[in-house]
Amino acid sequence: MSKKIIIKHPTLLLDEEQCRANIRGMKAKADRYGLKFRPHFKTHQSAYIGKWFREYGVHSCTVSSVRMARYFAGNGWRDILLAFPVNVNALDEINYLASIINFQMMISSADVLERLEKGVKTKMGVRIEINTGQDRTGLAPENIEAIEAIIEMIERHPLLSFTGFYSHPGHTYAARGKEAIQKLYGSMKHDVEMLKNTVSTKHSVRDITIGDTPGCSVMEDFGPISEMSPGNFVFYDLMQLSIGSCQFDQLAVAMACPVVDVNRNRNEVIIHGGAVHFSKEYIEVDGKKVFAQVLKMDQDRWVGLEEGAFLTAMSQEHGIISTKNSAWLRPIQIGDIVYLMPAHSCLTADCMQQYRLTTGDAWIPGKLAGSMPG
Amino acid sequence: MSKKIIIKHPTLLLDEEQCRANIRGMKAKADRYGLKFRPHFKTHQSAYIGKWFREYGVHSCTVSSVRMARYFAGNGWRDILLAFPVNVNALDEINYLASIINFQMMISSADVLERLEKGVKTKMGVRIEINTGQDRTGLAPENIEAIEAIIEMIERHPLLSFTGFYSHPGHTYAARGKEAIQKLYGSMKHDVEMLKNTVSTKHSVRDITIGDTPGCSVMEDFGPISEMSPGNFVFYDLMQLSIGSCQFDQLAVAMACPVVDVNRNRNEVIIHGGAVHFSKEYIEVDGKKVFAQVLKMDQDRWVGLEEGAFLTAMSQEHGIISTKNSAWLRPIQIGDIVYLMPAHSCLTADCMQQYRLTTGDAWIPGKLAGSMPG
Repeated sequence: MSKKIIIKHPTLLLDEEQCRANIRGMKAKADRYGLKFRPHFKTHQSAYIGKWFREYGVHSCTVSSVRMARYFAGNGWRDILLAFPVNVNALDEINYLASIINFQMMISSADVLERLEKGVKTKMGVRIEINTGQDRTGLAPENIEAIEAIIEMIERHPLLSFTGFYSHPGHTYAARGKEAIQKLYGSMKHDVEMLKNTVSTKHSVRDITIGDTPGCSVMEDFGPISEMSPGNFVFYDLMQLSIGSCQFDQLAVAMACPVVDVNRNRNEVIIHGGAVHFSKEYIEVDGKKVFAQVLKMDQDRWVGLEEGAFLTAMSQEHGIISTKNSAWLRPIQIGDIVYLMPAHSCLTADCMQQYRLTTGDAWIPGKLAGSMPG
Repeated sequence: MSKKIIIKHPTLLLDEEQCRANIRGMKAKADRYGLKFRPHFKTHQSAYIGKWFREYGVHSCTVSSVRMARYFAGNGWRDILLAFPVNVNALDEINYLASIINFQMMISSADVLERLEKGVKTKMGVRIEINTGQDRTGLAPENIEAIEAIIEMIERHPLLSFTGFYSHPGHTYAARGKEAIQKLYGSMKHDVEMLKNTVSTKHSVRDITIGDTPGCSVMEDFGPISEMSPGNFVFYDLMQLSIGSCQFDQLAVAMACPVVDVNRNRNEVIIHGGAVHFSKEYIEVDGKKVFAQVLKMDQDRWVGLEEGAFLTAMSQEHGIISTKNSAWLRPIQIGDIVYLMPAHSCLTADCMQQYRLTTGDAWIPGKLAGSMPG
């Protein structure tokens, strides 16, 4: 990297080749298991990266806000699932979206459907959100009676059509290792299978979609699931590495930050790179907060993690790397560029809003560049 | 608010009248104590809000990045202190800035000055950063020998001039109550006074600046300090309220978020409003993370905090308010708008990037609107 790109300020680097490999790999996996592929675009938020997906035959996507739906609809995406409990205040915008693209909303309760019934003015699909263990939103899969009542309400509506179930089994983010993820999936698949079998006797269940990167990355048996919508896999990050969702080689983004001070008494390196660059998301390592970990570099590529060299404290613009790794610390000088793997690439990408390609060719825009608020 | 503004999406509301009162109040306090006023603009990051400061006779400001310096220089600010350890990689940009405005950089070690000496091409001021207890960056005030050696290096340089000391006593953010803040200031003022008295026998010390909102808000004796540069006071937030830096009435921003689900079994309200809106900064209340607290509203104004109604969990776009306050929870419906006071308004403003005036008149741009990266 140092050869090709001069870094002056905190910069989010994107390895296009690896990012494309992650996209191709997940698409191939979906194909291999006969699953539809509807990647979540909340991670990259970039029409440019969206185009890479299209090159590999992907034409459907998932988003998590009306704004994101509007942005990708405006960038040529014609099949969008808004996998977020529908915001009834934005129904005029949703009606408009559904009039120009193939749009599915998601509901997580009967209450909201009652609120929507009169306001829907355009044909659209409706997913029912199922809570498979994350306990954030969604109906319990064993709550068959309530789910069937909702399906019937949808089917009675002249403009709505029931398109299946959606679940984000986000509790897999607390798992560590393939076996732990498989165990969570085991009970989840069982519950969803039961739901599907019961509901299918009376209603057509088009799709059952799950959206967590850990499961989509490591599972080899998807049971009743017909569609996958992971988001983070496009970049992966330190959290996914610690979960066991990816190999080091699959990490496709990294932060590059200038060293602005070195405090050898406290074994600390101070970088320009803080909460407004990384976000304040962390993983815990030995009970301590870790916002990012220093990377070993070989020319233009990150090749490993620097042991025990963690970004452990942040202000708005400052980051403090504290370390007992003296081999790494000793040669560090003010003005050096330090490369770090962020804890959570989705939030770092949201903060940084743009990507610098590691080939040195270009900046590419992220965070719904040019979109209106909402 | 509900009368004037229709809220559809997560929105950062700004009470212009209160914000102006905070600006006028702090300016009047600085005047009363004979202090110069150089407010920190990292909180609002808005040329528009910058103009309000000018209306009250403020013509100097503090920033925390080269990008921010460039943005405010481009918006008419002619006296800027970059209160961040100087980034030697950005020296070309700093030289350019210093050629068009009255610019001061800050250094926190002799090392960096050696790195800078040959690269400086334009006259500029240099502050030395003093560590008064936060232990982030800066020289210890008792390290007189090193400090004097740096001052002499600065004075020998044909383009640099020593303009004094800067300190961010950020350890006051861990204090609770006026007395605790005063106690920290007591020892800080003593150390800085000693430093000033010793250094002044040989060198001219133009300014001694401190920049924490808790101290600037509650102190009534600033000792050797000649200039104040608080930032957060322009809005204040839940953290400052818990520190005791402000009264509830002084809170000038709030988030408005739509309710998208209510889980009465778990006593939870799910809002559209997550990590990309609030940031993941939190305060601890009874050992639990609190990202924001629900506000009581009276028409167009927040009038109090809703007891025990806290934003306690967030995903990228979801927020979960969990509460035992059944009087608040009972009438809440999907589609309602909930108003919340964020833990840390600087980071929330950075995430949201724009403000909606509570008068309903306009959106105003924030986050260095239209600036280039860097």
